[in-house]
Amino acid sequence: MALADSVGDPRFFARSGPHSLATIATLIGAEPLDHPAASQAVTGIAPLQTAGPDDISFLDNKRYAPLLEQTRAGAVIVAPAMRPRVPPDCVALVTPEPYVGWARVAALFHPEPPPNPGIHPSALVAADAEIDSSVEIGPFVVVQSGARIGAHTAIAPFALIGRGVVLGQHCRIGAHVSISHAVIGDRVRLYPGVRVGQDGFGFAITKSGGIPNFLSVPQLGRVLIDDDVEVGANTTIDRGSAHDTRIGAGSRIDNLVMLAHNVQLGRCCVIVSQSGISGSTVLEDFVQIGAQAGLTGHLRIGAKARIGAQAGVMSDVDAGAAVVGSPAMPIKEFFRNVAVLRRLARKGGADKSGG
Amino acid sequence: MALADSVGDPRFFARSGPHSLATIATLIGAEPLDHPAASQAVTGIAPLQTAGPDDISFLDNKRYAPLLEQTRAGAVIVAPAMRPRVPPDCVALVTPEPYVGWARVAALFHPEPPPNPGIHPSALVAADAEIDSSVEIGPFVVVQSGARIGAHTAIAPFALIGRGVVLGQHCRIGAHVSISHAVIGDRVRLYPGVRVGQDGFGFAITKSGGIPNFLSVPQLGRVLIDDDVEVGANTTIDRGSAHDTRIGAGSRIDNLVMLAHNVQLGRCCVIVSQSGISGSTVLEDFVQIGAQAGLTGHLRIGAKARIGAQAGVMSDVDAGAAVVGSPAMPIKEFFRNVAVLRRLARKGGADKSGG
Amino acid sequence: MALADSVGDPRFFARSGPHSLATIATLIGAEPLDHPAASQAVTGIAPLQTAGPDDISFLDNKRYAPLLEQTRAGAVIVAPAMRPRVPPDCVALVTPEPYVGWARVAALFHPEPPPNPGIHPSALVAADAEIDSSVEIGPFVVVQSGARIGAHTAIAPFALIGRGVVLGQHCRIGAHVSISHAVIGDRVRLYPGVRVGQDGFGFAITKSGGIPNFLSVPQLGRVLIDDDVEVGANTTIDRGSAHDTRIGAGSRIDNLVMLAHNVQLGRCCVIVSQSGISGSTVLEDFVQIGAQAGLTGHLRIGAKARIGAQAGVMSDVDAGAAVVGSPAMPIKEFFRNVAVLRRLARKGGADKSGG
Repeated sequence: MALADSVGDPRFFARSGPHSLATIATLIGAEPLDHPAASQAVTGIAPLQTAGPDDISFLDNKRYAPLLEQTRAGAVIVAPAMRPRVPPDCVALVTPEPYVGWARVAALFHPEPPPNPGIHPSALVAADAEIDSSVEIGPFVVVQSGARIGAHTAIAPFALIGRGVVLGQHCRIGAHVSISHAVIGDRVRLYPGVRVGQDGFGFAITKSGGIPNFLSVPQLGRVLIDDDVEVGANTTIDRGSAHDTRIGAGSRIDNLVMLAHNVQLGRCCVIVSQSGISGSTVLEDFVQIGAQAGLTGHLRIGAKARIGAQAGVMSDVDAGAAVVGSPAMPIKEFFRNVAVLRRLARKGGADKSGG
Repeated sequence: MALADSVGDPRFFARSGPHSLATIATLIGAEPLDHPAASQAVTGIAPLQTAGPDDISFLDNKRYAPLLEQTRAGAVIVAPAMRPRVPPDCVALVTPEPYVGWARVAALFHPEPPPNPGIHPSALVAADAEIDSSVEIGPFVVVQSGARIGAHTAIAPFALIGRGVVLGQHCRIGAHVSISHAVIGDRVRLYPGVRVGQDGFGFAITKSGGIPNFLSVPQLGRVLIDDDVEVGANTTIDRGSAHDTRIGAGSRIDNLVMLAHNVQLGRCCVIVSQSGISGSTVLEDFVQIGAQAGLTGHLRIGAKARIGAQAGVMSDVDAGAAVVGSPAMPIKEFFRNVAVLRRLARKGGADKSGG
Repeated sequence: MALADSVGDPRFFARSGPHSLATIATLIGAEPLDHPAASQAVTGIAPLQTAGPDDISFLDNKRYAPLLEQTRAGAVIVAPAMRPRVPPDCVALVTPEPYVGWARVAALFHPEPPPNPGIHPSALVAADAEIDSSVEIGPFVVVQSGARIGAHTAIAPFALIGRGVVLGQHCRIGAHVSISHAVIGDRVRLYPGVRVGQDGFGFAITKSGGIPNFLSVPQLGRVLIDDDVEVGANTTIDRGSAHDTRIGAGSRIDNLVMLAHNVQLGRCCVIVSQSGISGSTVLEDFVQIGAQAGLTGHLRIGAKARIGAQAGVMSDVDAGAAVVGSPAMPIKEFFRNVAVLRRLARKGGADKSGG
């Protein structure tokens, strides 16, 4: 199975086009075009390596700049600094935010299909659920009593929308998602297998019977997810215990992340995959957490703080700080430690072999 | 979407009450009440910050003691040491285990609804499955041939109870759970998306064909889950290969945990989220494992040992020991290493800039 | 619930046999048998501890050699070096690859049932999907428009085979799996809860509105999974953004692994549970990644490289290299660092208490 790379395989993606370069330049706010081919149109998008004269491509990561010089693309979206490296036959669309431009152009050529309104006959929707007529409810979906689903939202097969759950407008709920005890805003996307609203990990330890024994603590809070949040596949967000678990507007959460009960994320937080945040920890706005990082409970992470991949955070982090390591420390200190230990180990090894 | 915090939102939770403080004191074994308002009743529960005069609250974590002094709650469950900090208008219910008391009171005001006996018409239950008449089987559940389900157990939508699986009494099986090759005791709770009984990660490497090649090893054991176990959302428990995978009574497993084939957990082990235990490792009773810790295979972890978050355990751990770090070491040694390295790095940095 | 260990519990596994030791020796390529009991047959398989005279067992891990000397098994599969430790009443089947032999014998006694051809009446299969007549489609499966499923493939309950997805022959798709935007080869196994083909974690950050804002980047690639791949429970494989995500033939991926968009795995890579590989990182053939390891994006990992458990890999790794630690370093250097730090900490502690 040696398939060539493909962008926008028509089996999987809708297509539109061709679109003129002038239209595209306007769409992405690029500088005025000054190339002889600027009046032409392109029919598709492709990465630099495989793009042909009818395609538009882009460069964002400088690591791939050598590919730019060799591309056969008809046009390319680049930052100003890269303009000199664009081949002469290729029209440069210059913008300070080429990746943003790429996002817009990709969506132009491959628009996401709108929901297909209606309730699939195999779905089970409670009689008292309030479903806007524009909503798409897929096969084998279960919507329980009292749930409310806003306009233009689409629910994929096998999703469970639990009793009383509120979903806003223009949401996309993936296959096999389960949601309970939650109020969810507009334009929220939950990818397949996401778990929202199940019991948090809460139990009391009683010794009254002589040996330790665990007693479950009722988890009586909710999950509140604000507008424009995305949650990656198989991520779990437990509901609050005596408070609510909250995800601030615009936050982006990757796959296999664990958010424990009462966690609060501010606006536009970014949580990369396989990270975990323990109970009652609060992230202010614009916090970024790298992959596989872990935060203990009851912490406060200041706005715009950055937590590195695999960090183990055991105390509060100041706004704007960047930490990494386990236990987490300022990023400079971490790499200084690494370097010092390496130096000592080399000497130590020499001492040892010399001794 | 700026919703106020809520405990026991009636859309999601049942309610009972009011309940008299005398009843509550008896329920939780609190000291006799000696407050003028002790004969009154409360109508609900709430955290310290939001509780009003008709609510009962609690304090367990000393970190939040300042909230106690300012609470408007009508009554509060506290440990003896906190009694002096309870405001004069607030009735103190004093107990050595306030969190246990809170668990009981929360369940009093918000009792979990019992199963609703019956098999949903959309469920597919094999003719030879043995289902107690008190069992609740939800929409789109599949129960395969020879499965047995004990009294008062409830199965949520989209769960798969595989061929021959045995489930005890009073279990709660969450949405989208899959169970195969397993025998499960009473009062076991599996949260949404749990995977029990699939093939372990077992293959032999053969070089007979010249290049290495993988040959799957049939996984012929089972998963045995004893009474009173809870398993968090999207956790995976593989079945044994030539032994059984075993989870001891009362153990609590959080979300996104990985338990490999032939792992054995003793009684009342606690495994926090995103931890992983490799094949054939044995945990004795009351072992605690912090979040994101990893244990290699074929180890023995002694009773009451504590493994810290993000630890990487590569050798046996003595009973009662506390280890952390990767590779794991005694907790004191770990933090001494951290401190020494920091000191050296500061000096080293000075040397370097001075050199 | 004190159940004895069981191999091949008939509630869960098919059985065949008895089989003669001569047949078995031929099957596994063992040396010619020279034991008086070599003409006999065995009726089942069992681990060394529980096997009786009618059972065959095996020893692969030297750690368990003492069990060999005490086994009551009728026959045992061992490496040449272990032959002297086989008890006199036990027939030794000697082979350089005893674990491979065990895999073959276990499959002989407990063969995997073939698919049961047909489409369950509750399944929803699009009219234009191409399904071979030998395919098994279980209850509540959804197969969307344009999907193609090859001969002898079996699809478990609640699986979603998305629009246009291609599945090869002899595949096994577990319960609650979701697949979209993917082309999958022959003999591929996806365990329950696997997510294939959902959107990668891709967004552009625009500051055009004054404050940072996230704009989703359309994810227009696919997931290509080559022949003989296995993917563990609840693992997530995102589709490519402007390239394809690729999994090379024969690769084995454990549970709860995260493979981000555009990741490429070569042939026969092994990824142990809870590891994560960030976007666009390339693994050449035969790379092994231990549990809970993490790789940042845009790296190249050379053929046969080995990444240790919990490693944090931030730069390319040479072919054949073995690294561990976070940040990852050669394995020798890592353990030298650990030893040196321990030595310094002991001295440092002494200095401190002495100072």
